[in-house]
Amino acid sequence: MGATMKNVLIIGCGKSTAVLVDYLLAEAEKHDWQICAADRDLALAEQRIAGHPRGRALELDVADVAQVEELVRAADLVVSMLPAHMHGPVVEACIHFQAHFVSASYVPLEARELQDAATRNGMTLLWEMGVDPGIDHLSAMEKLDELRGQGARITAFETFTGGLVAPASDDNPWGYKFTWNPRNVVVAGQGVVKFKHNGRYKYIPYHKLFSRFEPLSIPGYGNFEGYPNRDSLKYRNHYGLFNVDTIYRGTLRRPGFCRAWNCLVQLGLTDDSYQVEDLANMTYRDFVNAYLWYDKEMSVELKLRAYLKLDMNSPALEMIKWLGLYADEPIGLKRGTPAQVLQKRLEEKWKLGPDDRDMICMLHKTEYELDGKRWLVQSSMVTLGEDSVRTAMARTVGLTAGIGAKLVLTGEITRRGILIPTGPEVYKPVLAELRQHGIAFQERTEQLD
Amino acid sequence: MGATMKNVLIIGCGKSTAVLVDYLLAEAEKHDWQICAADRDLALAEQRIAGHPRGRALELDVADVAQVEELVRAADLVVSMLPAHMHGPVVEACIHFQAHFVSASYVPLEARELQDAATRNGMTLLWEMGVDPGIDHLSAMEKLDELRGQGARITAFETFTGGLVAPASDDNPWGYKFTWNPRNVVVAGQGVVKFKHNGRYKYIPYHKLFSRFEPLSIPGYGNFEGYPNRDSLKYRNHYGLFNVDTIYRGTLRRPGFCRAWNCLVQLGLTDDSYQVEDLANMTYRDFVNAYLWYDKEMSVELKLRAYLKLDMNSPALEMIKWLGLYADEPIGLKRGTPAQVLQKRLEEKWKLGPDDRDMICMLHKTEYELDGKRWLVQSSMVTLGEDSVRTAMARTVGLTAGIGAKLVLTGEITRRGILIPTGPEVYKPVLAELRQHGIAFQERTEQLD
Repeated sequence: MGATMKNVLIIGCGKSTAVLVDYLLAEAEKHDWQICAADRDLALAEQRIAGHPRGRALELDVADVAQVEELVRAADLVVSMLPAHMHGPVVEACIHFQAHFVSASYVPLEARELQDAATRNGMTLLWEMGVDPGIDHLSAMEKLDELRGQGARITAFETFTGGLVAPASDDNPWGYKFTWNPRNVVVAGQGVVKFKHNGRYKYIPYHKLFSRFEPLSIPGYGNFEGYPNRDSLKYRNHYGLFNVDTIYRGTLRRPGFCRAWNCLVQLGLTDDSYQVEDLANMTYRDFVNAYLWYDKEMSVELKLRAYLKLDMNSPALEMIKWLGLYADEPIGLKRGTPAQVLQKRLEEKWKLGPDDRDMICMLHKTEYELDGKRWLVQSSMVTLGEDSVRTAMARTVGLTAGIGAKLVLTGEITRRGILIPTGPEVYKPVLAELRQHGIAFQERTEQLD
Repeated sequence: MGATMKNVLIIGCGKSTAVLVDYLLAEAEKHDWQICAADRDLALAEQRIAGHPRGRALELDVADVAQVEELVRAADLVVSMLPAHMHGPVVEACIHFQAHFVSASYVPLEARELQDAATRNGMTLLWEMGVDPGIDHLSAMEKLDELRGQGARITAFETFTGGLVAPASDDNPWGYKFTWNPRNVVVAGQGVVKFKHNGRYKYIPYHKLFSRFEPLSIPGYGNFEGYPNRDSLKYRNHYGLFNVDTIYRGTLRRPGFCRAWNCLVQLGLTDDSYQVEDLANMTYRDFVNAYLWYDKEMSVELKLRAYLKLDMNSPALEMIKWLGLYADEPIGLKRGTPAQVLQKRLEEKWKLGPDDRDMICMLHKTEYELDGKRWLVQSSMVTLGEDSVRTAMARTVGLTAGIGAKLVLTGEITRRGILIPTGPEVYKPVLAELRQHGIAFQERTEQLD
């Protein structure tokens, strides 16, 4: 081992880390790195390292602060792939023992207090280095800076991301399977949605959200619909878009998804705030019926159609039927909220098969004025999973975080303190290397008016 | 003063206490009582006592525990007319210094822990002695006990109460003015509604609540509609209706109210969970427009109609217009939630005039089987305010609480500990005396099938 050898510690070896560990191991020889992968489940850590000579697998319980500190003390950089609420002790140890920190999570509110300490100790805390957040920031800022550099005035910025299923594996009427945390999908959008459109603040209550989607398309991948995320307004700061007339951040789904999902929202099946009574004795049909009025003459199907004012041939009705929500089949839960019942059924129906591949799609729509004309540029990126391990999600998250770690270790990223990837010193090299891995944006520009 | 003289302390002299204080003063000579009325605002307490020789007015800050204890120590019974969350220190002082306690509020969760201490010290804590809760319990239990005494099997019980405006003062398209806490009206029903209908648990999410009202009528007072309250299920315990197929508790409004209110809910204007951006510069028209999409060709009125899928001549549209929600008129609030903005406008439009009278309506629908036949009995009570002080609300709440206090002091109510008025020793004498004050139920019975 040379005197310049550096230790990289990866904490958490879940689904999204397969590509990350491979990437860092592949770069290890060249940069003289030692890669340590730690997880609660030692076998999982060993599977990630796969006997690589530059790698080492360790069992780690992150609740054991002494052990976390011992590992961080030996590290030059830590990539934390823990769930978002668990980074706290790791970040603190990084500042104290002078290791840089990289994560794919949003900057937690409480982490902002660490800015001074991190800067003082010369540490870089690089957050939001995944796909969403991550590649969205990198690609949006590259485009926005380029346009501003040409003297353009940005008037509208909309951005959409979706974790979907690859076209070849898209074999159900929803055009959707779970490729990520199912619970987040079931409760998505609860609360109020805020954005700005043509100079005006706009609000959409949750029960109207899935009826106010935007039709979109990505060349080569067909049509999509985008529904807005909860708070688009905070991206004004991140992207320097203080005077923009429209700012909107949304989630991509395949056409028809929002209308059908809206039926489940209208019924009340996504509520996670109370327990369903007598659940142990209920079938899925009983469950749906609990949200419809009593009528001894009408079937559950007919009542639902009348309640939601749907046409007889509405695709949404077929999609609900396909989910088996009318089935006289025991739910098999003793206790649960409506959202938990729905999630159970969806996990059965929207299961990603062993041969299925996932797909990450991203689309930015930027309107601007330049030379007295109005323009719209649409930048899109689609990437497919290679198999059930090297998924599109694992590739986009793992490569982005891995490249970020490399840039900090090699000194290309010199800023210290809390950082999200919106500056050129990050987005230029990261996007260039992502392109080498086939993660690249296409552009279409059209003149408006 | 005789040796048997008793001291009654009334804490809180707000709107609903005018009739209560009058009632207790009128009974004071006969029972040898001294009535002390205490309020933060001494002038208000003095106005209630109005120089009566048996009365005394006092200034009291209920945050001053020492003063509360001093007053309670001298009292034989305390009627607390404070807001629901403020009874705590008063109840504890009552148990400690051995004064009985009467209130028109729901039993707070934390008060249930005082059951043993109250019983041990020989104190009666009589809660829910107002109108709703109060007269609803008294009248429901009288009817249910009577039917059960005849051998009837109760199959369904629905109960509705409304604080409305008297027919002679009903001069706006909503058939409604504020006669009680406006905020409670604006946020009514938020969360999920639970009830039981024909043997099945039923749930209605908030955004569907005001489209699932029940048409009702009360002889002599015309038509109403009832929408369900949040949790009807707990009344199974109170009323001994464990095996009933239907239990439903609702609020009464005049026809048309629910459909129009539903429009405000659908828009999202009743949300109390976030601040509206840039509120200081907005008109009511801007406020409504913030919940509609951007369209430079369409008016706010047209967008709203299309969004909510209303017919051109829909009465709901006229009712929204009448509220002035399309007006280009500054809101005049610096900060506020949507619900607070809406409340401000409603308080201007639904203001009870100095000559307006209010009205309390109550309706119980009880279905039962008796002698092999099925029956429906509808029991209804309507009472009008006499003027702007002796309102229907002040009369029903004040007389019920006052009679309750009298029955405890005279020893007709002998049970100790926490009590709500569901037993015959309370409902018989209270209902009998309410009838003398013209607060009486009418009955209609019809055979079903």
